[in-house]
Amino acid sequence: MHRSGGVRYDESIVRSILVKTASADYPVYVGSGLVAGFGNHLRKITGKRAGRTFVLTSPNIWALWGRQFISGFKPGEAPEVLFMPSGERHKRLSSIERLATELSAAGADRSSLLVAFGGGIIGDTGGFLAAIYMRGIPYIQIPTTLLAQVDSSVGGKTGVNLSTGKNLVGSFHHPLAVFADTDVLRTLPARELRAGLFESVKAGIIRDPRLFRYLEEKRDQVLACEPSAMMYVVSASVKMKAEVVGIDERESGMRMVLNFGHTLGHAIEAVTGYRSLLHGEAIAWGMLAALNVCRSRHLLPEKDARRMEQLIRAYGPLPGFRAKIPALLHAAGRDKKNKAGTRRFVVTSGIGRAHVIEDVTDAELAAALEPVLNEAAR
Amino acid sequence: MHRSGGVRYDESIVRSILVKTASADYPVYVGSGLVAGFGNHLRKITGKRAGRTFVLTSPNIWALWGRQFISGFKPGEAPEVLFMPSGERHKRLSSIERLATELSAAGADRSSLLVAFGGGIIGDTGGFLAAIYMRGIPYIQIPTTLLAQVDSSVGGKTGVNLSTGKNLVGSFHHPLAVFADTDVLRTLPARELRAGLFESVKAGIIRDPRLFRYLEEKRDQVLACEPSAMMYVVSASVKMKAEVVGIDERESGMRMVLNFGHTLGHAIEAVTGYRSLLHGEAIAWGMLAALNVCRSRHLLPEKDARRMEQLIRAYGPLPGFRAKIPALLHAAGRDKKNKAGTRRFVVTSGIGRAHVIEDVTDAELAAALEPVLNEAAR
Repeated sequence: MHRSGGVRYDESIVRSILVKTASADYPVYVGSGLVAGFGNHLRKITGKRAGRTFVLTSPNIWALWGRQFISGFKPGEAPEVLFMPSGERHKRLSSIERLATELSAAGADRSSLLVAFGGGIIGDTGGFLAAIYMRGIPYIQIPTTLLAQVDSSVGGKTGVNLSTGKNLVGSFHHPLAVFADTDVLRTLPARELRAGLFESVKAGIIRDPRLFRYLEEKRDQVLACEPSAMMYVVSASVKMKAEVVGIDERESGMRMVLNFGHTLGHAIEAVTGYRSLLHGEAIAWGMLAALNVCRSRHLLPEKDARRMEQLIRAYGPLPGFRAKIPALLHAAGRDKKNKAGTRRFVVTSGIGRAHVIEDVTDAELAAALEPVLNEAAR
Repeated sequence: MHRSGGVRYDESIVRSILVKTASADYPVYVGSGLVAGFGNHLRKITGKRAGRTFVLTSPNIWALWGRQFISGFKPGEAPEVLFMPSGERHKRLSSIERLATELSAAGADRSSLLVAFGGGIIGDTGGFLAAIYMRGIPYIQIPTTLLAQVDSSVGGKTGVNLSTGKNLVGSFHHPLAVFADTDVLRTLPARELRAGLFESVKAGIIRDPRLFRYLEEKRDQVLACEPSAMMYVVSASVKMKAEVVGIDERESGMRMVLNFGHTLGHAIEAVTGYRSLLHGEAIAWGMLAALNVCRSRHLLPEKDARRMEQLIRAYGPLPGFRAKIPALLHAAGRDKKNKAGTRRFVVTSGIGRAHVIEDVTDAELAAALEPVLNEAAR
């Protein structure tokens, strides 16, 4: 396939990033045509597997991309399809129960492979299903949202929600491979694209000054979802996460920096009932609040703080919300990353640098939240 | 505490068996007074842990042993108790959901420890809860049935049932330690004791001729639950399993020999709706059928076959049941150990020896089952 701009897109334009962790190594492919070519890729990856392939997807994704997906398989070899409706409320153990029962009724065994083809909810649920079905079967991720491509599909975290909080049950289970097809981003609603970009902004802030600059300079191309821009943004974000996860698979230390903006972002999501904001938008608000903590501690040059703030706002507008400080602090106290009472918090000391502090106080967080809440309530 | 026979039982009479696997090493303590001393042992194992301790148990076990359990803790340090009713029907994801929500509402975090105090159902469910709560928290097993002591508490397999089959969802998650207190076996119903002993009989058949002989010669002491006999039987069974699991943690080969009698035993359980037989009893019937397969293949000396049969019957009587061969073969086809159509089957070639064959046919299994079903239907 050729594009008018002189940039050639075909299967050969695929970048491969290797995620290396203590427990598994696997490639993340980023590029164009990956969904349409998946049947071929699968044969290459799994060789002459005797096992069967199952796909978990959502009706929406299947309506948009199902035909392309099937097109890469030989007649009669197309995998069986399991469906899960869109929406965070389906990311629960009850879905796992239903899907596992369907797998078992269809005769899936330990040699079967599950492909999670959808956004983060499909990826997290499908990964967890693969993690616990018969105590673990292999799986492959084909993330279809930007957020899932740059964040949730890499790192091996899988899980579902409880009524008391998000991702409170789950497993570490790495995929055999991840296929991040930049083509599918074209069918993503603009708001979801922007929300996903905040994780790339975070990647720039905490570890990749070059990506940070790219997002500053190429804002228009990125927001227009231009293939070369998405290719760069997705690969750079994945590479950053792969490096961090490779150093610290189980979040004993280093991996926690990925949580920049997330302590308060998660709290904002929880307090607003996961309704008014997309995940990335809540993280963006959380990053603005985290920057206030860094500022009041004089951790980073004001120039950097301002560039970070500007970059976050450049990918807005951020939808407003209403929340009270005590409720947010209470919700932040429930974060999985807290151990036995201490509250960990990720700060930045300059573009491309982040570290974890353990002594952040409620008063500090309240002061940092106040201007953010005022702005959000306008 | 002294016994009239001149054998002294106190805390020092505790054997420790180390389970060494690729992913974790942990001790299994076998002996007397372990429940009463648990509070002390826990302090020794975990040191100055900042985290909280939660206990999952059944109302029955708690009524019998709760006071003893609590007695080893300092006032104010007793752990919080979560309950799960007895019965296989509670070993489901819905219980996991409820218990995880209770943990989260009580503020359990990644530094919390879960103690599974009960039979195999509590152990499997509690282990799985620990495996997936916040993607994994540490746990300790205090198995209170013989079956759980000699089998399910060792090896790291955790999980729950689906409507389509037992243990179809789960994780590998090793405990920090296992405390197998032979005292608690005294409150076990006689039928459950005998059912558990079939796993020890299996241990003798597949790998431990000395245990096999002990079970032949000391039948009366074992069935009377004499402390020294239980100490030997439990330690030898645990040691056998620890060795096998140490060689093959994830059941890629060697570990499968533990499944002697289980392919057909599981099928019998499934077809009889998990109602008429206890697990160990179904395994005993399954071993009798497996011996028929070995005989018709001339795999083992008739003298050994007869001793094995006699030993199984010595720990009977086995309750009868009714089942049809096609239903059993169908149920056996669903076993987790089958990979992509091949049917694996464990055979013995003599006392203390077992291996896996892959070419067992339905006709062979049918012929092996026939006399067993006739006997069971009487």
